[in-house]
Amino acid sequence: MLTDIKQSIQSFQLLEDGHVTSPKGFTAGGVHTGLRKAALDFGWIHSIVPAAAAGVYTLNSFQAAPLKLTKKHVDTAQQIQTLVVNSGNANSCTGEDGMKKAQATAELVAKEKGIEAHLVAIASTGIIGVPLPFAPIEKGIQYLNDPLCQKAENFERAILTTDIETKHLAIEMEIDGKKITIGGAAKGSGMIHPNMATMLGFITTDAVVDSKSLEQALKSTTDQTFNMITVDGDSSTNDMVLALANGTQNNQTLTQEHPQWTKFLQGFHYVCKTLAKSIARDGEGATKLIEVEVVGATTIEAARAVAKTVISSNLVKTAMYGSDANWGRIISAIGYSKQKIEPERIKVAFGHIPVVENGMGVPFDEEAVMLILVKDELKLTIDLQQGDCSATAWGCDLTYDYIRINSSYRT
Amino acid sequence: MLTDIKQSIQSFQLLEDGHVTSPKGFTAGGVHTGLRKAALDFGWIHSIVPAAAAGVYTLNSFQAAPLKLTKKHVDTAQQIQTLVVNSGNANSCTGEDGMKKAQATAELVAKEKGIEAHLVAIASTGIIGVPLPFAPIEKGIQYLNDPLCQKAENFERAILTTDIETKHLAIEMEIDGKKITIGGAAKGSGMIHPNMATMLGFITTDAVVDSKSLEQALKSTTDQTFNMITVDGDSSTNDMVLALANGTQNNQTLTQEHPQWTKFLQGFHYVCKTLAKSIARDGEGATKLIEVEVVGATTIEAARAVAKTVISSNLVKTAMYGSDANWGRIISAIGYSKQKIEPERIKVAFGHIPVVENGMGVPFDEEAVMLILVKDELKLTIDLQQGDCSATAWGCDLTYDYIRINSSYRT
Repeated sequence: MLTDIKQSIQSFQLLEDGHVTSPKGFTAGGVHTGLRKAALDFGWIHSIVPAAAAGVYTLNSFQAAPLKLTKKHVDTAQQIQTLVVNSGNANSCTGEDGMKKAQATAELVAKEKGIEAHLVAIASTGIIGVPLPFAPIEKGIQYLNDPLCQKAENFERAILTTDIETKHLAIEMEIDGKKITIGGAAKGSGMIHPNMATMLGFITTDAVVDSKSLEQALKSTTDQTFNMITVDGDSSTNDMVLALANGTQNNQTLTQEHPQWTKFLQGFHYVCKTLAKSIARDGEGATKLIEVEVVGATTIEAARAVAKTVISSNLVKTAMYGSDANWGRIISAIGYSKQKIEPERIKVAFGHIPVVENGMGVPFDEEAVMLILVKDELKLTIDLQQGDCSATAWGCDLTYDYIRINSSYRT
Repeated sequence: MLTDIKQSIQSFQLLEDGHVTSPKGFTAGGVHTGLRKAALDFGWIHSIVPAAAAGVYTLNSFQAAPLKLTKKHVDTAQQIQTLVVNSGNANSCTGEDGMKKAQATAELVAKEKGIEAHLVAIASTGIIGVPLPFAPIEKGIQYLNDPLCQKAENFERAILTTDIETKHLAIEMEIDGKKITIGGAAKGSGMIHPNMATMLGFITTDAVVDSKSLEQALKSTTDQTFNMITVDGDSSTNDMVLALANGTQNNQTLTQEHPQWTKFLQGFHYVCKTLAKSIARDGEGATKLIEVEVVGATTIEAARAVAKTVISSNLVKTAMYGSDANWGRIISAIGYSKQKIEPERIKVAFGHIPVVENGMGVPFDEEAVMLILVKDELKLTIDLQQGDCSATAWGCDLTYDYIRINSSYRT
C-alpha cells in the first residue's frame, strides 16, 4: 500500500494554516477549567452532523475509562458527533468511579449539544491513578456552545501536557470534482512508543467515507505512522487516534472500490505522518528529529522491528544528542532486534554518507558526518541487503532535559 | 530450581576479601598495554591444570571475533586453562582481520603458557568497529608469566570500561568433606540488558564438576541472575559469562546426581546473583539499585517479562531517580509487557508499603514512601494475583550522568 502511495503523484495541497476545523462542518474550541494550573485543559471538536468514525486504541492491558467508553460508542453506530478531551488527569486506574465519571461526562455533553450520548467520544491525558475532579469537567461542558470559545487553536492547546508546540495541519484535494479537506491535530511528548502512547490524534474530513473503509485506512496508516514513532519506549493507557468523516462535501462514498481511493489515502497518510513526526520532534527534552529508514528486509515486520529497535536504543539516542557518529551502537541495536540478520551484509549511512559496508566500518569524512549530525533533523539509513521490504521510524534524542522533566513529574 | 534453593539452608560462607583466585590453583593478573590511556587494559586468569569450562554468550546477531573463538574453544574439549581479556577495544565488526587477530592472540597466549591453543579463552570489551591494535596485545601477553603482575585486583580492574568499581567475591562450602571455593569477577556498566550485554562474568571453582552439569548450572543460573539485570536495554556483541572448574579439591565429581548438587548450586547462584546486582548498581550514572520482584504470575516467563519491562522503563527509572512515587508509570509498564494481565487484580508496593490494590491507587503515607525511595537500594513488588510463579529483576535509575557519559563516548 505504501508503494502504491509512493508511486502515485502527490495530488493534494497543504493549507497554510490548517486545523481540524479546516474541513467543512467542524467547529472546535477549548477553555481552562482548573484541571491544570493555568493552561487550557478542556477542548472539543464538534461536527454539524454525525460523522462516520473510526478509532485505534492503546494495546496497553490497562485501558483508561474514557478510552473504553469511546471505543464502545464508536462501535455502537460507527458515528461520533462531539469529541471532548481533557488534559491534567488521565482518568486511568480509577476503577468504577472513573467509568461513572466518563459516562457522566458523555451524558452531560450529549445534553448540552442536544445529541445522543453514544455520539460522544471522550479522551483524557495526564496523571494516572488520581480520581478525576469532576467539577472542572462540568465547568468545561458549559462552554461547549459558547461562541467566544470556538477556536481550533484553543482545542489544540487544551490537549497538550508536556508538549511544547501545538501540532496541526490540513490538506485539500479534489474527489469527484468536489473540494475535500482533511485536517488533523495531535499531542504527544513523553511515553511515546509503538502501538499508541500518551498520544492523542484527531483526524477530521468533510469527505463522505464509508466507516469500514475509514477504519481500515486508519489502521493501516497508523501502523506506518503513529505506531512508528518513539520517544522513550513507554506506551500509555490512554492513547487513541480518532478519524471523523462528516460527509458534508457530498462526494461519492469513498471505499476501496472508489477510483480515487488511493488519492484520498495518500492525503490521509500525509496528515497522519506529519502529525506523527511532529510528535517525535517534540518528545520530552528532544533537540532533534531522527528518522531511521530500514531497506532490504525480507518482510515489512522485520523492517519495522529493526527500525524501531534502533530508534528506541538509549545508547543511539544519547549518541545522536552528542552528535557522535558512533555506528557501533546502531549495529549493536540491529543485532538485538530479534530478527534474522546477516551481519556481513549490513550497510549503514548517516544522511548520504556510508559508515558501514558489509557489516564493517568504512573510512568516512568525520567533518562531513558531523555537519549531518548537528542538524535538528537527521536520517539514518540501514540496508539489510536481504530482501525488498522497507520501513521508516521516527524518534528523538535522549537529553538532560528528558531526565529533568521526568524525574519530577508528579511534584 | 529456585524454590529448591530457597528452601535449602544457606550453607556457605562469604569470604571477607574473595576473588577469582580464592579457589585453589587459579592465578590472575593484569597490566597496562596502551589500549586505554592510563588504566589497566589487559588481564588474565590461569588455572594450574585445564579446567572444565562452560560459557553463555550474547544473543546479539553480531558476535565479536573473540567471543566466536572462545565459544569454539570451549566446545572443542569443554576445557579452558588460560583466559585473557582486553578492554578499550571490542574487536567487534572487524571482519576477517578481527578473527585473525583473535586467533593470533590465542596462539601467542598458548605459546607463552606452554599449552594448546584450544585451551585459551579470549574476551574483549570497548569500542565496536575499530580494528584491534595488536602491539598492545602482544605486549600484554609478555607479562602473562611475570610474577610481579599476578594479582587478582589487577585482573578485576583490567576488564572494566566505564564501571566505577571492581566487582568480585568468593564463597566457601564443604562438599564430600572437602573445602570447595567458588570465586567470581565481572564488569558491566552501559549497554546492560537481558541476554548478556557488554557484560563479562568469570566464575572459578576448585571443585570437580562435570562439564555438562557445569553448563546446565551456568545456563539456568544466568537466566535468573545475569539475564535479569538491565541498565539501558541495549545488549552488546561481546557479552559472555565463563565458568571454570579446575577440580583441584578432588571431591566426587559434581553432577545433578551428586547428593550435594543443590548445595553447590546454591553457592554458585549466590556468586552469580551478587555479581549481577553489583553490575546493575554500577550502571552508567546510576545512583540506586532497584529490585523489581513479580509474584503471582501464571508462568516464570510472564513473571520475568513483567519484571524486565518495568525495570527497563525510562519513565520508571527517571521517577526512581527523582524519588517520585509515581506508580502510574509502573502500572503502565506492566500493561505494555505483552503478557496477559488482569488489571483489576494488580498489587504494587514500594518496599513494604502498598500503593496499588486491585489495579487502583490506595491512600499511602507519602513520607514513609519517600523514606524508601531516597535510599540507594530499593524494592518494588508487583503481585499479579494470577498464579504461583515469580521472578526478580535488577536495574538502576536513569540520571543526568547517564546522558553525560553516553553523549560523548567516542570523543
